Amino acid sequence: MIPRIVIEKRLKEFLEEDLSIGDVTSAFIPERKSKANIVVKEPGTVAGIEVVKILFDLMDVSVADSVTDGSMVKKNQVVMNVEGSSGNILMAERTALNILGRMSGIATVTKGMVEKARRVNPSIRIAATRKTTPGFRIFEKMAAVIGGADSHRFFTGDAVLIKNNHLLLIGSVKKALQLAKSTSFIRKIEIEVRSLNEAIEAAEECVDVIMFDNMSPDMIRAVMDRIEELGLGKNILFEASGGIKPENVEEYARTGVDIISSGYITHSARMLNVSLYLV
Amino acid sequence: MIPRIVIEKRLKEFLEEDLSIGDVTSAFIPERKSKANIVVKEPGTVAGIEVVKILFDLMDVSVADSVTDGSMVKKNQVVMNVEGSSGNILMAERTALNILGRMSGIATVTKGMVEKARRVNPSIRIAATRKTTPGFRIFEKMAAVIGGADSHRFFTGDAVLIKNNHLLLIGSVKKALQLAKSTSFIRKIEIEVRSLNEAIEAAEECVDVIMFDNMSPDMIRAVMDRIEELGLGKNILFEASGGIKPENVEEYARTGVDIISSGYITHSARMLNVSLYLV
Amino acid sequence: MIPRIVIEKRLKEFLEEDLSIGDVTSAFIPERKSKANIVVKEPGTVAGIEVVKILFDLMDVSVADSVTDGSMVKKNQVVMNVEGSSGNILMAERTALNILGRMSGIATVTKGMVEKARRVNPSIRIAATRKTTPGFRIFEKMAAVIGGADSHRFFTGDAVLIKNNHLLLIGSVKKALQLAKSTSFIRKIEIEVRSLNEAIEAAEECVDVIMFDNMSPDMIRAVMDRIEELGLGKNILFEASGGIKPENVEEYARTGVDIISSGYITHSARMLNVSLYLV
Amino acid sequence: MIPRIVIEKRLKEFLEEDLSIGDVTSAFIPERKSKANIVVKEPGTVAGIEVVKILFDLMDVSVADSVTDGSMVKKNQVVMNVEGSSGNILMAERTALNILGRMSGIATVTKGMVEKARRVNPSIRIAATRKTTPGFRIFEKMAAVIGGADSHRFFTGDAVLIKNNHLLLIGSVKKALQLAKSTSFIRKIEIEVRSLNEAIEAAEECVDVIMFDNMSPDMIRAVMDRIEELGLGKNILFEASGGIKPENVEEYARTGVDIISSGYITHSARMLNVSLYLV
Amino acid sequence: MIPRIVIEKRLKEFLEEDLSIGDVTSAFIPERKSKANIVVKEPGTVAGIEVVKILFDLMDVSVADSVTDGSMVKKNQVVMNVEGSSGNILMAERTALNILGRMSGIATVTKGMVEKARRVNPSIRIAATRKTTPGFRIFEKMAAVIGGADSHRFFTGDAVLIKNNHLLLIGSVKKALQLAKSTSFIRKIEIEVRSLNEAIEAAEECVDVIMFDNMSPDMIRAVMDRIEELGLGKNILFEASGGIKPENVEEYARTGVDIISSGYITHSARMLNVSLYLV
Amino acid sequence: MIPRIVIEKRLKEFLEEDLSIGDVTSAFIPERKSKANIVVKEPGTVAGIEVVKILFDLMDVSVADSVTDGSMVKKNQVVMNVEGSSGNILMAERTALNILGRMSGIATVTKGMVEKARRVNPSIRIAATRKTTPGFRIFEKMAAVIGGADSHRFFTGDAVLIKNNHLLLIGSVKKALQLAKSTSFIRKIEIEVRSLNEAIEAAEECVDVIMFDNMSPDMIRAVMDRIEELGLGKNILFEASGGIKPENVEEYARTGVDIISSGYITHSARMLNVSLYLV
Repeated sequence: MIPRIVIEKRLKEFLEEDLSIGDVTSAFIPERKSKANIVVKEPGTVAGIEVVKILFDLMDVSVADSVTDGSMVKKNQVVMNVEGSSGNILMAERTALNILGRMSGIATVTKGMVEKARRVNPSIRIAATRKTTPGFRIFEKMAAVIGGADSHRFFTGDAVLIKNNHLLLIGSVKKALQLAKSTSFIRKIEIEVRSLNEAIEAAEECVDVIMFDNMSPDMIRAVMDRIEELGLGKNILFEASGGIKPENVEEYARTGVDIISSGYITHSARMLNVSLYLV
Repeated sequence: MIPRIVIEKRLKEFLEEDLSIGDVTSAFIPERKSKANIVVKEPGTVAGIEVVKILFDLMDVSVADSVTDGSMVKKNQVVMNVEGSSGNILMAERTALNILGRMSGIATVTKGMVEKARRVNPSIRIAATRKTTPGFRIFEKMAAVIGGADSHRFFTGDAVLIKNNHLLLIGSVKKALQLAKSTSFIRKIEIEVRSLNEAIEAAEECVDVIMFDNMSPDMIRAVMDRIEELGLGKNILFEASGGIKPENVEEYARTGVDIISSGYITHSARMLNVSLYLV
Repeated sequence: MIPRIVIEKRLKEFLEEDLSIGDVTSAFIPERKSKANIVVKEPGTVAGIEVVKILFDLMDVSVADSVTDGSMVKKNQVVMNVEGSSGNILMAERTALNILGRMSGIATVTKGMVEKARRVNPSIRIAATRKTTPGFRIFEKMAAVIGGADSHRFFTGDAVLIKNNHLLLIGSVKKALQLAKSTSFIRKIEIEVRSLNEAIEAAEECVDVIMFDNMSPDMIRAVMDRIEELGLGKNILFEASGGIKPENVEEYARTGVDIISSGYITHSARMLNVSLYLV
Repeated sequence: MIPRIVIEKRLKEFLEEDLSIGDVTSAFIPERKSKANIVVKEPGTVAGIEVVKILFDLMDVSVADSVTDGSMVKKNQVVMNVEGSSGNILMAERTALNILGRMSGIATVTKGMVEKARRVNPSIRIAATRKTTPGFRIFEKMAAVIGGADSHRFFTGDAVLIKNNHLLLIGSVKKALQLAKSTSFIRKIEIEVRSLNEAIEAAEECVDVIMFDNMSPDMIRAVMDRIEELGLGKNILFEASGGIKPENVEEYARTGVDIISSGYITHSARMLNVSLYLV
Repeated sequence: MIPRIVIEKRLKEFLEEDLSIGDVTSAFIPERKSKANIVVKEPGTVAGIEVVKILFDLMDVSVADSVTDGSMVKKNQVVMNVEGSSGNILMAERTALNILGRMSGIATVTKGMVEKARRVNPSIRIAATRKTTPGFRIFEKMAAVIGGADSHRFFTGDAVLIKNNHLLLIGSVKKALQLAKSTSFIRKIEIEVRSLNEAIEAAEECVDVIMFDNMSPDMIRAVMDRIEELGLGKNILFEASGGIKPENVEEYARTGVDIISSGYITHSARMLNVSLYLV
Repeated sequence: MIPRIVIEKRLKEFLEEDLSIGDVTSAFIPERKSKANIVVKEPGTVAGIEVVKILFDLMDVSVADSVTDGSMVKKNQVVMNVEGSSGNILMAERTALNILGRMSGIATVTKGMVEKARRVNPSIRIAATRKTTPGFRIFEKMAAVIGGADSHRFFTGDAVLIKNNHLLLIGSVKKALQLAKSTSFIRKIEIEVRSLNEAIEAAEECVDVIMFDNMSPDMIRAVMDRIEELGLGKNILFEASGGIKPENVEEYARTGVDIISSGYITHSARMLNVSLYLV
């Protein structure tokens, strides 16, 4: 979905970030046509393959073969074979591995969360947040999607999301939602609530998504039941958020919410261990 | 050390990455002059304060007070007070928190590693690697330095580092080092070795730094002893690398190496939990 | 809503587009501190005032006074007084006038359409399209909003909009909407329909917005009536589109649609006549 | 004349302006190799073909066939056939149509003006002004040239043009022209005059172009006659400017001026109606 | 004449070229408020003062005092006093000196050429060429102007200049000039000639400038005399070009040409020796 | 060593600097497929061939044949044959020649210095400084390397270099070096000394490189002898700097220093005379 010209622009910046005006080690090594394998050193879900293909293309290295994004891989599995001048392969190496490692780390954690949650609530969506690394968001969101998550908002402009800080400035849920609707019809309106009353007020205003912020699973269920009793929830999606991680995701999924948004999958995923070997 | 114009350029890109052409939620909220606190929700070492000050400055928000980079903070400690138009504060919020959270996460892990290692080897350096998030490296390196680490190479051009892939292309340690010296006198030369013989060959060529790659602490000690016996190690620094983490850092530190380089502090640090509250 | 750093970046490009590396006429004219007025030469709705203030600020020219965006102005009304070095005023002149003239032209046409439509349907929205001038979209959308319109989508990423070309590729309205829903919950889904059957199919899938593409007002009314009879339209917005202009906007507004989208307000608005005079 | 690298840079910005980080509609539609036609929905003079070819090339869409820039086309005429992945065609669509529509709109109006003027004064030039849309000038100037106009100044650096505001700062036509000549010999010098006396003063200083600003055709003729009587006009070009449009262009052309500059062709041209259809 | 935003953009690039992401030496030196002098170590004409003021401003260093651009200075004369943080002064140092040194070197050589030439032909202009250093042209042209020269063309778009390679493609001087005139009336037309016949042909077509390319002074005089005899030269400027340097500039000036263009002043000027001292 | 994407980015800026939005002369000349030769008009060492190949590639001109970088060429030798559209060749011409001419000028001077110095001290290195033209440094450093020199520091971040201004801020050589070592182990540390005592102090701190700044050859030899007597110089490199040029380079080389750094090769080299001829 992300146009190639957008990805290329960022990849050029990433290469410059690593290489600056050149690699003093590759500089003195006799160039020769080489092959290399990229190997994943631990099991996981691979993400970043399509991105790294573009990266190697920018460095005139050709990709002979590769697994597809989203593949589950085993320890020491080769995920990509490349071919080109040794200097170019080695100049692209670290950036390629950083992209693959970070994206695969996120996809792996995400997939785990999604599977756990869906076992108890098959139609639930795990959604990424904006708690991403500055400069690398589009790749982290992409990785989350490859891992089975919903991208949620990329930008603050993708949907209205009224948070506690906004409510503080406006005064009431009702007023906030009425203002929100007056701006544009084209974006969904989501609101973060912290109590039953706020949730009801939001539902009465026909908000698109209600996010339960840092509520316990029991509390969430109680609020959802009450809204149903009042006949208010028909076209509203419910989202749980705040401190949800692999350990407690099933509990939240069981509440019956439509969406669980999880900062965890981006802010706490570590890099998958990936290496490149000349062969 | 990083010039403000360089930081500003990247911060503008980060803001655009989050805001694109604007925040549709802040858009309809009545502007007013507000104050806000940034609070750390868990104990740790704070990093990113100076960067975030520049960020708020770019958004016309003034920073009234803040802790200094490197401060150890307690759970729920306020680390910064800001003041400005509510819209600008909320537009800067997520980017500010992402920077502070990521950098503090790295600084916190780093500080832990440094302290553990220095307890057994007081002059040792923990060094960051290039296993960073593309687009965010300078901030991750900065965070590692704030946490007490050495920055090691920012770019591939900062020093010669001959790795296994390079050796494969050249054939021998000796030949690699002779070539390296012929390029320029101005940069240090480091080489990754995997055996006693390679280490001795490197020491004979008066390399600046020998990196023991994925060797056990015992093996490292044996190699260092042998090099000392041969009277070869005088001006050479020794660096251990590969899979070193909080759990085993002391063991490696005890070998007497000068440097431990650790991908862990950047690739496995999670974000510190930080929030912003309008007050 | 658009952050100042985003606007500044574009304004710098606009200034370079006009000045390249300098103005050979201002070059030889003795600099002196001057004042100037910007005058609108024909009645209209002014838009671009806030943008042009930033422009003059970039050129070190201060704005002493100005009308507000959205003001209705009379022929020959002064809309802004500026003060600064004569060279800087004259270097900013053409870019300032091009921005003000284009934006005011759009705001003026938009306001006319909105007023006409609301006289017969007080809650209707006129919405801008993506038929804008490449490189200038954010300013054209802003002008439409100042004129009373809804911005509709800025980017193709703001909402799903399934058009005829997409339907051709997928085969059916139903399948298209099911696919759309599977991607992300966070964006609204709009679909362009060309017949009663397509409209019903879309309504059955609970689409967010149904756009009647190039249908006559009678046809639109008939379709809306039928959907209501079927009890399907409750949470759906209806939008009319295609060839709607000042001459026929009332007819379409009378159909009771919620939104009229109009390429006309951007693709057929001419520039308002604006001049700058040193005083 | 405009180098391809310059055009590509701007086209990439235009694509990003429309697509941001991606098109959420194209995202879920199954990719397939498709063909599409671009059709002009009303008669006119087509401009932008060469530009749009580069645009499609950037998106990996190939152009099978097209009319040439400047072609007169009939209602519903196909002007271009393209072929490529459906996703890429649809992502390029709006930007391609906005470029073609805007440029063809300008070319069409320009051609009309040129033909009208040349019927009464066969060697006259219609010239575009700098009253263009910020960010899109080079394409608007190109369109005017394709429509038969002279580009006049692209930048303020292309020629000296002394306007009323400059005269106000300097004091006299004579002084202004003497200063202008002292700067560089390489650019032409044009001056805007508002009276017979100013015109004579300018002619005496051997200016390159005299622009009659907002003068009536009768007045222009009178001034030109007087200058001829005085034997002063030999190497001077005469340009009429100010409020000239299709309705009065012949009157001005009949005065015998060499050039008519017309803001009208850029500031009042509307977009030609162009559509893209998958086939 | 060059807008400050244009200069700032380039200066930021120059600073990044020198500092990349920072100066490792300034990094460990205790910051303190310092003063520094910039001293010219050899006599010459200073250029670059206004540019360097902007540079220091970008680095938050204030300029207390300075000589003006174009000043003749003696050996060891202080040309600027600055004040600011020691780190910022030292980070700006090399870029500031490189700018001042290069620009002053060019201004010094230029002034020498201009004075020599004007002693024998008081109204002659020495003009710079496009033989400049890529990336630094606007500053080299500026330096030439400060030294008393005419800037000639900045870009290939500033005037038509038909050179031998162009003539080869077109076939004749006459045809080339007729084509040139058909493009736009707004730019001057200059042609390079290599024989009397070409010169006459050009004069007959009323070209604006005739450039004698690599002709001897005697030959130039002969051609000019002949053109005068034919009554053709009235509104034509004559320019000598090709291998003109301080040693032979008087000879060429004596021919009576209006302009001498000199690659020498940019391609053969060396840097003036300038240093910065903390005080 | 410099990645192609880095070079391409700069070359595009250079082309835009020369062409802006186009070449008005090439514009009216009938396009045709042409061949051209690039000829060096005076003997020298050619540098820039690989760079110019990329430049022509960006302009869709193919390079049929060329000499290699570093070749010694004779007067009037053809160094490159190109083929492509005449318009593209002529648009690339000036930028290509400016690059080749500047780089070859530097390579030629450098080669002369290197050969002179090596005749008396075969292992000596001549090193370039940062006294380069802003915007063009990477090409000037590259040219110096092609001419046989060492590149020395590209950026201020490549190595620590403590100069007199830094010493002034810190107070003593010893303190400066201890601080320098505390920052990072990865970069070499060089210090500028002005007396025997400073040199000894530096040697005692095991600095990597001692630079003798503006010392006479006799003085340099005396200092080196004394350091040797003290048994301190083993792993230290000695560099002479300050006013060294072709006339005195042998004298300095004879002192036995390891490196001579020379601003002369960049700040005083003139452009080699190079031309392009359509054939």
